[in-house]
Amino acid sequence: MPYEYRRVSLRPQKHPASVFGLRLRQARIQADIPQDKLGVAIGLDETTASARISRYETGTHAAPYDLAVKIAKVLNVPPTFLFCNDDDLARLILLWAQMSKAEQRRLMAELST
Amino acid sequence: MPYEYRRVSLRPQKHPASVFGLRLRQARIQADIPQDKLGVAIGLDETTASARISRYETGTHAAPYDLAVKIAKVLNVPPTFLFCNDDDLARLILLWAQMSKAEQRRLMAELST
Repeated sequence: MPYEYRRVSLRPQKHPASVFGLRLRQARIQADIPQDKLGVAIGLDETTASARISRYETGTHAAPYDLAVKIAKVLNVPPTFLFCNDDDLARLILLWAQMSKAEQRRLMAELST
Repeated sequence: MPYEYRRVSLRPQKHPASVFGLRLRQARIQADIPQDKLGVAIGLDETTASARISRYETGTHAAPYDLAVKIAKVLNVPPTFLFCNDDDLARLILLWAQMSKAEQRRLMAELST
């Protein structure tokens, strides 16, 4: 069944009711990946992928940690970002993830003095 | 039923099989709070508090996010610490939590340049 991805305006989706849902949507939109494509990328069945991701985003269901790790990998964020209820700390976690190992070591050395 | 808390050597407990369990035990030992006292502090029934916390630590059960937030508050760590599978990032999260708001703002300004 041939298909293509067309940018559709985001239907007014239910506002995420969980921290995980909020961060998941934030990271998914940042990565510009539609819900169904993300679901398939983490191994969900194509027919239910979009609905499953949608339910994690709205907080209807909680994703088990191992699935959260897969989601985080596809969205290129540390898994702990998805569980962060503090916006500033969430930003720090993303900044950390974009640093090189050398930059991370330098930061830790600086903060530990 | 009068009772007192006596320091008992940590029985060789099953090694945590989950990231959450590992971080929970780490934070609980750091806070020097026994499992039953932690369980009661987050509102669990006294008779099952210790067993419930033990199962979260060994990874037998996964704590729902709202309970993780209560646990984090008692153990004085950000909730996201309990879901962090990267030791260096986990240390950064703890350092962040010990900073003043002014220090946090300074760090974010420095990292965002």
